[in-house]
Amino acid sequence: MVTMMIEAEMASLAEEVSGIISSLLQKEDPLFKSAYHLPSHGGKRMRPYLVIKSCEAVGGEKESAVTPAAAVELLHNFTLVHDDIMDNDIMRRGVPTVHVLWGTPTAILAGDLLFAEAFDAILGSTLDDYRARRVASILAKATIRLSVGQFQDMSFEGRDDILEEEYLEMISGKTATLFRACAEIGAVIGGGREEIIAKLGEYGWNLGMAFQIFDDYLGMTSSEDELGKSVGNDLREGKKTLIVIKGMQTKSKDAIKSLLGNRNTPQAELSSLISSLREEGVLDYVRGKAMGYVEDAKRALSCLPDSNPKESLVQLVEFAVKRRK
Amino acid sequence: MVTMMIEAEMASLAEEVSGIISSLLQKEDPLFKSAYHLPSHGGKRMRPYLVIKSCEAVGGEKESAVTPAAAVELLHNFTLVHDDIMDNDIMRRGVPTVHVLWGTPTAILAGDLLFAEAFDAILGSTLDDYRARRVASILAKATIRLSVGQFQDMSFEGRDDILEEEYLEMISGKTATLFRACAEIGAVIGGGREEIIAKLGEYGWNLGMAFQIFDDYLGMTSSEDELGKSVGNDLREGKKTLIVIKGMQTKSKDAIKSLLGNRNTPQAELSSLISSLREEGVLDYVRGKAMGYVEDAKRALSCLPDSNPKESLVQLVEFAVKRRK
Repeated sequence: MVTMMIEAEMASLAEEVSGIISSLLQKEDPLFKSAYHLPSHGGKRMRPYLVIKSCEAVGGEKESAVTPAAAVELLHNFTLVHDDIMDNDIMRRGVPTVHVLWGTPTAILAGDLLFAEAFDAILGSTLDDYRARRVASILAKATIRLSVGQFQDMSFEGRDDILEEEYLEMISGKTATLFRACAEIGAVIGGGREEIIAKLGEYGWNLGMAFQIFDDYLGMTSSEDELGKSVGNDLREGKKTLIVIKGMQTKSKDAIKSLLGNRNTPQAELSSLISSLREEGVLDYVRGKAMGYVEDAKRALSCLPDSNPKESLVQLVEFAVKRRK
Repeated sequence: MVTMMIEAEMASLAEEVSGIISSLLQKEDPLFKSAYHLPSHGGKRMRPYLVIKSCEAVGGEKESAVTPAAAVELLHNFTLVHDDIMDNDIMRRGVPTVHVLWGTPTAILAGDLLFAEAFDAILGSTLDDYRARRVASILAKATIRLSVGQFQDMSFEGRDDILEEEYLEMISGKTATLFRACAEIGAVIGGGREEIIAKLGEYGWNLGMAFQIFDDYLGMTSSEDELGKSVGNDLREGKKTLIVIKGMQTKSKDAIKSLLGNRNTPQAELSSLISSLREEGVLDYVRGKAMGYVEDAKRALSCLPDSNPKESLVQLVEFAVKRRK
């Protein structure tokens, strides 16, 4: 029920954000066409929602946050386009990836263009100079950490001794950093006090951690129709998710080792492994880990007075661990 | 003589700029190591020089321009790292390219990191909010045009009917846009009036056009030792430079067609083609074209009062068409 309410609200704001993205990218130029491909195929727009609700939660107006929210979504899409090249992913959001459709050189450039458009949107927005600079600065710093996180993720390939701490550090950089940035950006735009900006950042970071851990969980437990990509893809690609890391400590270790990174693993073998991991409590452990971050995220919100936008932020963190895709 | 003077001054400022770049990128992290590879291997640092001298030419202080100048160099290096992947270039500045040393995924990320560091440096500089925002905005817009220019360059591959106008439009986006941005950025930082900022932008754009056309000329007429890469590389890669475009209108047409894009062309065949192009006046035509932009660049400076920095800008444009590499 809660999930449905927030999904409707997210969908409504997503439409507004999509309108801005379309006005920035829908051009005749063929490079713009390839850059617009991924953002035009949906996505949950959780990050824009987080920017807007964080702005409202500190008393700011939605209108001032919509363009920066669209910019954050562009930045997120830039990282996806480049990550898909690096990870050789062929499908995302139910459609072929940019490098599959237009080749790697164009996909690199399309990502670069999305990155530049994100900054151009913020710097050209109606924000005053102080806020435009600060928002762009938060985003630049986040991108540096995102790149380091993605690099760390790639460096896990070929290693079967990843520690849980290493995994958590990696997703902190690769995912939670941008969620933190979104919440801070919203709070800066809304004129929040410094300690409130920091608390919202903490909320965003915990939300991001919960979201990523649950995402890894979903990738193993959802269905292909719901995900828009194959179940167990992470395993096929050799991704060291928390499920893999914990599973390596159980009697499924050998099964994981033989399937990990094998792109031709039949679905039946994967399903059998997933059943074992469920029986051995690995799936519950991972879900529980996500729930811990959910609690921390909610706790960070306690500094805010009760309001509708605060309630939306609470719902957002619940949505992060209740969604099916 | 003039060339030697400006080279000494460029080298001195380059050292200062390199110090800032080193402080931003010289870190233990392996991704930073690959990102630092190209900027740590020299380059002429023409773009930082242009930022600093444009700032001084409107009465600004060098100190306020040095960090943004380093940022522009980072942005330039980001485009080189990504372009080298797209163009399959294996050497630059006399050393192997980033993707050759660390693979394409790391090179994509290293470029992304340089891009983010460029914005972070500007937004974290001592510039006031108005200038930091405007400088970052100029750079974001330039990056959009750079991406479109690189895309256009790639789209020339496989076409043998490129018009001179198309070529000029492509290098305007791919090269001259960033030179324009550098001059504008310097003028903004130095507190120049709007019409002076525009005139310096015009100077920078013409300088960039002259530089790129002369660069194509050098790539066919210099020596491997001086270039740090093979003579005729552009031809081997199938690049449609102005020399190729004009050469296609001469009796060398068939020779060009057979060599273009052939990576195994022996040096002797290339040398023979270059001799023919020289005899047929193609090399002179291209050099003359560059000289036309040199004159326009100098003319744009006439709005500035005489000063040492103005003299440096005049020398810079002469250097652009007198250098050997």
